[in-house]
Amino acid sequence: MTRRKLALGAFLHPSGHHVAAWRHPDARHDAGINLRNYIRLARVAEAAKFDLVFLADQIAVPSANLDYVSRTTRATYFEPLTLISALAAATETIGLVATVSTSFNSPYNLARYFASLDQISGGRAGWNLVTSGSTLEGENFGSGEGYYNHANRYRQAAEFADLVRGLWDTFDEGAVLDDRASGQYLDARKVHALGHAGEFFRVKGPLSVPRSAQGQPVLVQAGSSDAGRDLAARSAEVIFTAQPTLAQAQEFYGDVKTRARAYGRDPESIRILPGVFPVVGRSEEEAREKFQTLQDLVSPEVGREYLSIHLGGIDLSAYGDSDPVPQIEVSGRGHVSRPLLLLQKARERNLTIRELYLEIAGARGHWQIVGTPQSIADELEAYFTQGGADGFNIMPPSPTGLDDFVELVLPELRRRGLVRDDYEARTLRGHLGLTPPENRFAAAAKGQFHPHTEKESA
Amino acid sequence: MTRRKLALGAFLHPSGHHVAAWRHPDARHDAGINLRNYIRLARVAEAAKFDLVFLADQIAVPSANLDYVSRTTRATYFEPLTLISALAAATETIGLVATVSTSFNSPYNLARYFASLDQISGGRAGWNLVTSGSTLEGENFGSGEGYYNHANRYRQAAEFADLVRGLWDTFDEGAVLDDRASGQYLDARKVHALGHAGEFFRVKGPLSVPRSAQGQPVLVQAGSSDAGRDLAARSAEVIFTAQPTLAQAQEFYGDVKTRARAYGRDPESIRILPGVFPVVGRSEEEAREKFQTLQDLVSPEVGREYLSIHLGGIDLSAYGDSDPVPQIEVSGRGHVSRPLLLLQKARERNLTIRELYLEIAGARGHWQIVGTPQSIADELEAYFTQGGADGFNIMPPSPTGLDDFVELVLPELRRRGLVRDDYEARTLRGHLGLTPPENRFAAAAKGQFHPHTEKESA
Repeated sequence: MTRRKLALGAFLHPSGHHVAAWRHPDARHDAGINLRNYIRLARVAEAAKFDLVFLADQIAVPSANLDYVSRTTRATYFEPLTLISALAAATETIGLVATVSTSFNSPYNLARYFASLDQISGGRAGWNLVTSGSTLEGENFGSGEGYYNHANRYRQAAEFADLVRGLWDTFDEGAVLDDRASGQYLDARKVHALGHAGEFFRVKGPLSVPRSAQGQPVLVQAGSSDAGRDLAARSAEVIFTAQPTLAQAQEFYGDVKTRARAYGRDPESIRILPGVFPVVGRSEEEAREKFQTLQDLVSPEVGREYLSIHLGGIDLSAYGDSDPVPQIEVSGRGHVSRPLLLLQKARERNLTIRELYLEIAGARGHWQIVGTPQSIADELEAYFTQGGADGFNIMPPSPTGLDDFVELVLPELRRRGLVRDDYEARTLRGHLGLTPPENRFAAAAKGQFHPHTEKESA
Repeated sequence: MTRRKLALGAFLHPSGHHVAAWRHPDARHDAGINLRNYIRLARVAEAAKFDLVFLADQIAVPSANLDYVSRTTRATYFEPLTLISALAAATETIGLVATVSTSFNSPYNLARYFASLDQISGGRAGWNLVTSGSTLEGENFGSGEGYYNHANRYRQAAEFADLVRGLWDTFDEGAVLDDRASGQYLDARKVHALGHAGEFFRVKGPLSVPRSAQGQPVLVQAGSSDAGRDLAARSAEVIFTAQPTLAQAQEFYGDVKTRARAYGRDPESIRILPGVFPVVGRSEEEAREKFQTLQDLVSPEVGREYLSIHLGGIDLSAYGDSDPVPQIEVSGRGHVSRPLLLLQKARERNLTIRELYLEIAGARGHWQIVGTPQSIADELEAYFTQGGADGFNIMPPSPTGLDDFVELVLPELRRRGLVRDDYEARTLRGHLGLTPPENRFAAAAKGQFHPHTEKESA
């Protein structure tokens, strides 16, 4: 048996994750809506044998302040499902993960989108399950603030995820017979209605898409709150998470795998991938200069509003760039840990408004490393070998950030035996070394459990 | 000015539209879920300079009878949005129309999917708006029969369509400045909240996708009932319709264009495309043989259930294949005209059950022509020149049906000057000769109307 390798995701962003990356000289003017830009990035990742490309999402512009919005590219990008389907046609082997919220979608539609994408891509699809909590998103779907409170949202998401998987199970392996002589296209014993009736949803099924080459799409999740960790431990196969220090990463890693065991799952069947924002230079100085170039492009208008958003919507318009960060109450939002951590950091280090917004202008609270290929490889290796990560979701800072990582850091990781030399599989599950969850109907037929009698009476 | 040409759509179906096409020796075993199959068909249509490819949809398997379902490929196909996005990456010029229902989608999601597809494809997207009325579909979305009655469904669809267009308008032409020196990516005066508050929906906006090369996606509609015609006349730019005789086509064409005029629209800004199911042979005899080959593959189990579905769900299990079609009441469903027409045909011609199901096994009530390139071209030309059609949506009967049409019928149409020799445009609107609806915000800025003051107070 070969030693486990790092799982690698390429978290694509039009010109790079840094909020000012669009102002970089290498940026394309239409990067967020240029298919060729994304195809190029996906192919760079595929040539480098990454496990997957990853697309985030928000179902609203990032602020009601359209003056701020107009100073960013955060309101000008492809919708992930349509983009990832196009990328499926333009790539051969790499996995394709798109973010879609459970809050404003129907389980049947979502199950079908990903089942279809999984067939289109030959078994390379993954769904990053998120829930939506922002008022801005709610207002695009007929609701104000109160559509789901945090606890309900996660209970709804748990039912949603189970239901989607149930729909993916409605076709067993080998359901397509194509028996032209008898006229039997499908094996009728291998197609099932689901008959789900739960707290939030009633869905009959079956789906109209058969089981794919990887069984079913990979379920990715990105919650870090208590409810988020619980949902991840219960349902997720890949977990994307922000863990800016090794100690935090180890705590998260250990906690989620322990919770998974409590749900009767094998902790080895879960891959935890912290986000990493790597600024790579051939020397430390070159790396610092590259980063400074991006930091200098952050305008005060963007920096302050960006900070305000990351503090949960707090109004900072009364403060100047060189004012110290005020000590603001963020009570009643105990589940949102990032604003608290940010304010704590500002207090500890006596930061000004500008210093604090520059702290998040790049990695947004994710792990940020500015260094040489060797120093970055050292840090990644430490997370990997010391129980903090099974791999990483790479967040390129700038238009050429992915190229930098692939050309400079990857050879160093390869030299250390931490990444694969070539693909050994054709599906996303194959790359990640994950087996599909057993089909519940096939299991029932073997007498293990009986979803029909349990659920169809409702 | 050149003479107007026929608009041509290729209505793609896995192995062909005939219900038994999957049993044809040329069919692929996985045609409905094989991306290469669809890419091949789309490229055949593109090489032939068709205006568009067209994908239908149903958000459920076609029957609760899974024994019937398992004898067809009607439950085994890609979801259209994901498929059409993949086809966007695999084609260059042809238009791409996908069907999505207004009954089980959110306007914001739908507007964003198509705006994104329109950018992915460089201005080649079209949305075929349908409403969903079947219980089977409702049961996949938490509702039984009564989610929307027919009249409400169309009123909801009209508001939905207007709202989607409003979201497409939230970015004006030229909103992207990309002014890196000043840090202004968008022109803030050209990005708008919508603030829609109507009978069915409340949606704030803006969308997060800028205006595309064709302004906005083309709106296609396929209603033939009174409410459907009205919605089409009010909103649609392309109308797909079943018109099996010239007289019917002329009545429909005249009626819809008259209704459009009553809505203040230029009738020339609407393209009416009846569906055509052409079985092409080099001789009449060869054509008849090709058709008979398909008809002989229809099994009684499939034929009877297929007929039952097309009669609105009537149970025919008590009848044999050679029994005469019973005279069944289809009262209370006056808006569903096809069952009435079918029963009328059966009565007039004294048809047996098998004879009647073979009538619909191919074209499902669409116009069916079995003939030579010359006779088919004659009929198409008559519809086109005698006020029955602006073009046609071609429904290939068999796995090679599109190739047959392109290789045999198209040269004859070209010889008559009825179809283009090459593309003259790069967008779907360009192919169809349609201009985009004027942006409502840009119009407001010119003082023509004031959507903000009209709507944002709500």
